[in-house]
Amino acid sequence: MKYIIGMDVGTTATKGVLYDENVKAVFSASKGYPLIQTKIGQAEEDPKVIFDAVQEVIFALTQKADGEIAAISWSSQMHSLIGLDKDNNLLTNSITWADNCAKNVVQDAKKSGLARKIYQKTGMPMHPMAPIYKMLWLKDNEPELFNQVKKWIGIKEYLIFRLTGKLIIDTTMAAGTGMLNLKTLTWDQELLDTLNVKQEQLPEIAQPTEIVAPIKEEYVQKLGIDSDTKIVLGASDGYLSTIGVNAIDSDHFALNVGTSGAVRTIVDQPKIDQNASYFCYPVGKKHYLLGGPVNNGGIVFNWARQTLFDAGETPQDYLDVAQSAPAGSRNLIFLPYLSGERAPIWDANARGSFVGLTRMHQKPEMARAVIEGIIFNLYDAAFSLIKNTKKPVAINATGGFLKSDFVRQLCADIFNMPIVTMKEQQSGTLAAMFLARQALGINQDLSEIEQFAQEDKVYFPNPKEAVIYQNMFPLYCEIKNALAASYSKFLNKD
Amino acid sequence: MKYIIGMDVGTTATKGVLYDENVKAVFSASKGYPLIQTKIGQAEEDPKVIFDAVQEVIFALTQKADGEIAAISWSSQMHSLIGLDKDNNLLTNSITWADNCAKNVVQDAKKSGLARKIYQKTGMPMHPMAPIYKMLWLKDNEPELFNQVKKWIGIKEYLIFRLTGKLIIDTTMAAGTGMLNLKTLTWDQELLDTLNVKQEQLPEIAQPTEIVAPIKEEYVQKLGIDSDTKIVLGASDGYLSTIGVNAIDSDHFALNVGTSGAVRTIVDQPKIDQNASYFCYPVGKKHYLLGGPVNNGGIVFNWARQTLFDAGETPQDYLDVAQSAPAGSRNLIFLPYLSGERAPIWDANARGSFVGLTRMHQKPEMARAVIEGIIFNLYDAAFSLIKNTKKPVAINATGGFLKSDFVRQLCADIFNMPIVTMKEQQSGTLAAMFLARQALGINQDLSEIEQFAQEDKVYFPNPKEAVIYQNMFPLYCEIKNALAASYSKFLNKD
Ligand SMILES: Nc1ncnc2c1ncn2[C@@H]1O[C@H](COP(=O)(O)OP(=O)(O)OP(=O)(O)O)[C@@H](O)[C@H]1O
Ligand SMILES: Nc1ncnc2c1ncn2[C@@H]1O[C@H](COP(=O)(O)OP(=O)(O)O)[C@@H](O)[C@H]1O
Repeated sequence: MKYIIGMDVGTTATKGVLYDENVKAVFSASKGYPLIQTKIGQAEEDPKVIFDAVQEVIFALTQKADGEIAAISWSSQMHSLIGLDKDNNLLTNSITWADNCAKNVVQDAKKSGLARKIYQKTGMPMHPMAPIYKMLWLKDNEPELFNQVKKWIGIKEYLIFRLTGKLIIDTTMAAGTGMLNLKTLTWDQELLDTLNVKQEQLPEIAQPTEIVAPIKEEYVQKLGIDSDTKIVLGASDGYLSTIGVNAIDSDHFALNVGTSGAVRTIVDQPKIDQNASYFCYPVGKKHYLLGGPVNNGGIVFNWARQTLFDAGETPQDYLDVAQSAPAGSRNLIFLPYLSGERAPIWDANARGSFVGLTRMHQKPEMARAVIEGIIFNLYDAAFSLIKNTKKPVAINATGGFLKSDFVRQLCADIFNMPIVTMKEQQSGTLAAMFLARQALGINQDLSEIEQFAQEDKVYFPNPKEAVIYQNMFPLYCEIKNALAASYSKFLNKD
Repeated sequence: MKYIIGMDVGTTATKGVLYDENVKAVFSASKGYPLIQTKIGQAEEDPKVIFDAVQEVIFALTQKADGEIAAISWSSQMHSLIGLDKDNNLLTNSITWADNCAKNVVQDAKKSGLARKIYQKTGMPMHPMAPIYKMLWLKDNEPELFNQVKKWIGIKEYLIFRLTGKLIIDTTMAAGTGMLNLKTLTWDQELLDTLNVKQEQLPEIAQPTEIVAPIKEEYVQKLGIDSDTKIVLGASDGYLSTIGVNAIDSDHFALNVGTSGAVRTIVDQPKIDQNASYFCYPVGKKHYLLGGPVNNGGIVFNWARQTLFDAGETPQDYLDVAQSAPAGSRNLIFLPYLSGERAPIWDANARGSFVGLTRMHQKPEMARAVIEGIIFNLYDAAFSLIKNTKKPVAINATGGFLKSDFVRQLCADIFNMPIVTMKEQQSGTLAAMFLARQALGINQDLSEIEQFAQEDKVYFPNPKEAVIYQNMFPLYCEIKNALAASYSKFLNKD
């Protein structure tokens, strides 16, 4: 039996799954690591600690394999930034997507027009998560460090470099830096000039299915693998979780709503938005990942449960009460931006609101409005994709917030589209594994994912409710717009 | 012993109090009556039923007097409209302040500029409560009825007409019609022309201390009074409750917050507001009552208690939880317009909102924000008075919402002024009685009220909290303004 290992390097942990030739998950392992937060807004990680975790996971998996490990393939968190010195030693931690150091840089870049240029050239939204903004910040605030850095990479590139000695990045991860030109799929010279960074300081760009150099001898033994185990370059978790639920073209949107959420789709040409409300990341010359990452998913549901209900009450108790209110919660609007928001409004200062309260609104209406507001926001994010592409045939949905029939049906009603829920899998590692199968020549393309991405149930929109929500959406947007300018006035006291 | 009866003709009941020569309340009686609501927005009352209630109350009081009834004086609900035919028989019910028939008339009058003219000439806000708008509505929608009406009066005028045969109105009640010219203290000819109504169709105007004609013989017996018992014209409840808490000049504001609320003051010249955000009703040539009636007082507190808390929890439980949140509720803004709003925004479509939610906001913050929002709104109403007059020395406060030390202190902190709570009395009947004492020549003016309006406690603003709220008020106003244009878009489905 031959095996493939799918690795998923997340923000809080690295997971690995050992798959056999029949695409069966034989064994999983996972190892967590801490976030470094010594000041407000900081969110860094130690690349060495992550590399240790990765080794531990791979070793644990190889011990369960009774045959050759044909390949190791990668899914990774996006937007991390690491600086290496002239000897390729670490000069920085891995500054993760969650780090806020570049917040003011983005503000300035919005004013100067640079942020718009970056979006138009690279599809990267105007957000401090992007390495390009972090580099601009370092250039101004840590000039000595900045000048010492000879190579700029991210966490996946670091791990593969450690294993193979090669500095290489796949297109989907390169897209997440804000420096990859959408049209040419190469590093954008004009933006590099702005940074005062040279092409040679960035990794070589390759396809996700690229087979990197062989693993260094020292790790062959240490990890219990063969010397001809292939390291497949892999891709970003955003891309892989999209194809992992079989959303492989614009007929399908992938919707994941856990603590946070995201809506994504794949199109065959670059399509950017006038309001820069979603990202557009190249995968290859004929594949672009469009999407909106949404902060406020189940985290807001959790908040509402704790705030409107008593400690003893369960999610199901909440949903039972919410269900007793009519669709539309008697025109009570809830904007769910409790954690600030990325897509669709991209405002870190945004806050949540209930608007439209009358004495008819009691606990059931407030409870229901929260759920409807979370879904309106996801729909809003999806809507900006639809405006620039087309209405999908269905939404392939996953995540803990979409566990109940009630919320799933609400989602179908608000989106006014069929919602296909998918059996939960480690879709990142699964899709990474499929990339390896393609790289190894087992398959020609990714179409075999379709057989393995298992549909659970389909929810069709209820026409009566759909009409209510379609009528309500303009009001939701009006309230959203009315409050947009005020968020920056809330003092940061909490 | 000689007695004076103070009558207070309210919307839900008429109360009467028998006062002795020493200004001591000897006995009280009250009789309720129903509101007539056969269609949405209607709020009428049967004048005959009210007259019966009035007789019953007076009779009950006279039975407790062991001496002569020197006078009967009146406090009354404002803004009611009654049409009489050529024989002074009723052609309509009493259409109360709460009736909404003239809603669209006001909309149109705002557009045409008529509403602004009415405000500027009479101090009457742009609101369907005003008889002038109801008359405009009848003129267009019930032209036959309108033409049959030979006299237009209100409920107090009706009651006094029944007792004395005289059609007479005091200045404070006349001001509440929207037809009394602020400068001349006579019916405004231009507005009457717009209505196609003649001066003779309206009652004669007199001072509140006017002694009307003697009581008709038939009632002397029936009510158990003397034939020389004086009927003193009396005044509006708004005016009398203001002087009743000793807010007799602009050094003091009267603040009452029960189910709804009001803030009022008395100035010596007519002062209208650019935004028509308060009323300016003449009392006499040197006295004008300025004020804002506010819909959303304790009614919103009640709503929040039922919505955020469980049925078993008391107002005090609510206040205990609210007190555990910091001043300013971590910058959570609550707009309390759950019942639409009159002062300060005059928008019947207005709705309530929580704006600025983050995950730091839990039940205590939401509970406290509601109370702060109710008080911000009252302050907002007071603020428009202050802008046009001056900052008062203190606020004389009454009402069920201001029962607890916590809410009273909050009020002092948000207003940033001393709050003097007054021992609850029937301030309407009390002040009506003082009017009678002046009319009878027992006193020269109303200054003796000062001795009888009993202060309870004084609350001084807490400097630290006051600063927090003064900093927060601009944000409150910004949110208020941001949402103002959207209320009309909420469908009237609830
Ligand atoms: N019955 C339920 N209905 C709706 N939401 C629920 C329910 N139970 C849990 N949740 C929400 O689901 C979220 C967790 O979902 P999931 O496990 O998919 O997220 P995660 O993996 O932590 O998040 P992410 O995918 O954003 O990293 C929690 O925020 C919780 O509030
Ligand atoms: N402890 C309290 N704190 C604040 N408000 C209260 C409290 N108890 C009652 N209320 C509110 O006071 C209002 C009643 O006040 P009251 O002056 O009797 O009103 P009204 O005469 O206008 O009906 C109710 O709306 C209620 O919500």
